[in-house]
Amino acid sequence: MNPVHIADPQDPRVAPYLDIRERDLAGRQGRFVAEGKVVLNVLFSARRFAAESVLVLESRLPGLAATLALAPANMPVYVASGPVMDAIAGFHIHRGVLAIGRKRAPQAPEELLDELPERALVVVLVGIANHDNVGAIFRNAAAFGAAAVILDASSCDPLYRKAIRVSVGAVLKIPFAVADDADGLADAMARRGFELYGLSPRGKADLRDVERRGRAALWFGAEGEGLPEKLLARLNTVRIAMAGGFDSLNVAAASAIALHQLAELEKSAG
Amino acid sequence: MNPVHIADPQDPRVAPYLDIRERDLAGRQGRFVAEGKVVLNVLFSARRFAAESVLVLESRLPGLAATLALAPANMPVYVASGPVMDAIAGFHIHRGVLAIGRKRAPQAPEELLDELPERALVVVLVGIANHDNVGAIFRNAAAFGAAAVILDASSCDPLYRKAIRVSVGAVLKIPFAVADDADGLADAMARRGFELYGLSPRGKADLRDVERRGRAALWFGAEGEGLPEKLLARLNTVRIAMAGGFDSLNVAAASAIALHQLAELEKSAG
Repeated sequence: MNPVHIADPQDPRVAPYLDIRERDLAGRQGRFVAEGKVVLNVLFSARRFAAESVLVLESRLPGLAATLALAPANMPVYVASGPVMDAIAGFHIHRGVLAIGRKRAPQAPEELLDELPERALVVVLVGIANHDNVGAIFRNAAAFGAAAVILDASSCDPLYRKAIRVSVGAVLKIPFAVADDADGLADAMARRGFELYGLSPRGKADLRDVERRGRAALWFGAEGEGLPEKLLARLNTVRIAMAGGFDSLNVAAASAIALHQLAELEKSAG
Repeated sequence: MNPVHIADPQDPRVAPYLDIRERDLAGRQGRFVAEGKVVLNVLFSARRFAAESVLVLESRLPGLAATLALAPANMPVYVASGPVMDAIAGFHIHRGVLAIGRKRAPQAPEELLDELPERALVVVLVGIANHDNVGAIFRNAAAFGAAAVILDASSCDPLYRKAIRVSVGAVLKIPFAVADDADGLADAMARRGFELYGLSPRGKADLRDVERRGRAALWFGAEGEGLPEKLLARLNTVRIAMAGGFDSLNVAAASAIALHQLAELEKSAG
């Protein structure tokens, strides 16, 4: 480990951490901000991402020793007092530790699909622009062993700070790719033997009756609009049964239910 | 309808709306802040709550005519320009409409349980202090037809502004009560024929194997700590199967899965 004490919030070495709430780093040369020990543990063991540096509250340094031991040996660890850290970030950093990560070469969806095994469950998101929902869906995808997440270009970048945080690091764990064209993606998946399931309140099949085969993809659209009609027309549409009078379900909640149902989870002893 | 134009943010008639983000109205004589058209529709038809007044952006007034027609005829409707409304609330009110609601007489948990039918699914929350999670759980409870929600005293007040908003009004729709003592509540439910299921990562039964009978209660604890051991010892413990390596599920996601599983939903045609 290589701790560097920072006394001046304007120190150029911590420039990537300046005013992080205002400046969304996502998309800037593939850099992003990761927060908290749990997320950093995932970042340091992620093969698709590199950690560029860490900024840590001096009082938190001892408690983070085991986490920082996972980081590359030459990665700088910037250490600051509470007031300096908050002045850098532009708000109070509750978790006391931040990292700047960098995406390695992005992968095209087809390339990612080609790496998947014969039995695989993939999540596809179309038009999900809310960071909390994207983060929560990644967390669910990780909990139920999804092999990948593919987002269309109108969904939000999973590397947005809040999405990473809500996902508890799952965004850095599950391979993901961005598809320019949802119809083209459906073709590419069908060619690779995926059964495509589109969640919709007006879906033809009840989720509880779906029998998953080897390769399956669960497609989710934004709350309200849902998946585009044109796309629904070529998917196996599936509905989640609800009680009358209040048939409204958050898309992350819907993903939890659908993933649990289709994940082929083992029945281990409790 | 009774529109009253407000030009001065300090007008005493709109005092309950002052700086609403700073002052959590929940618990103040049972008053709370409801936001947005969907939530107001629920508030105006809720029998357990009364609407005291509405504050609406003048440009939104025509679009809210159908909603406001559901309100009590003598309820004041305060109308303001954008700058005045934002100055009152202390931040930008995106949805353009707020209401102050009031709880009618609170109900003891036993009283609420006595009103429930022979077949009923109840959600019990212990130590859930996060407003988003409480709101999301109420939304799931409504989607799957839960008859009531009972919270222990360490859970957050569902009438907190953000919880109401995240619940999309479900907090105002599903009867809820607060129990001082979780063990006493378990006794009260058992006496009334409820099967008590406690969700826990180390639960004895796999959720998919649970056969719900007439009256069932799903107990959820806070993420991390979970339900207290003493309480788990007297519940039928249930786990949600997950993939290895990332067995972390948000409590609202867990509630969606468990409610969907135990809700006895009809298999209507799609």
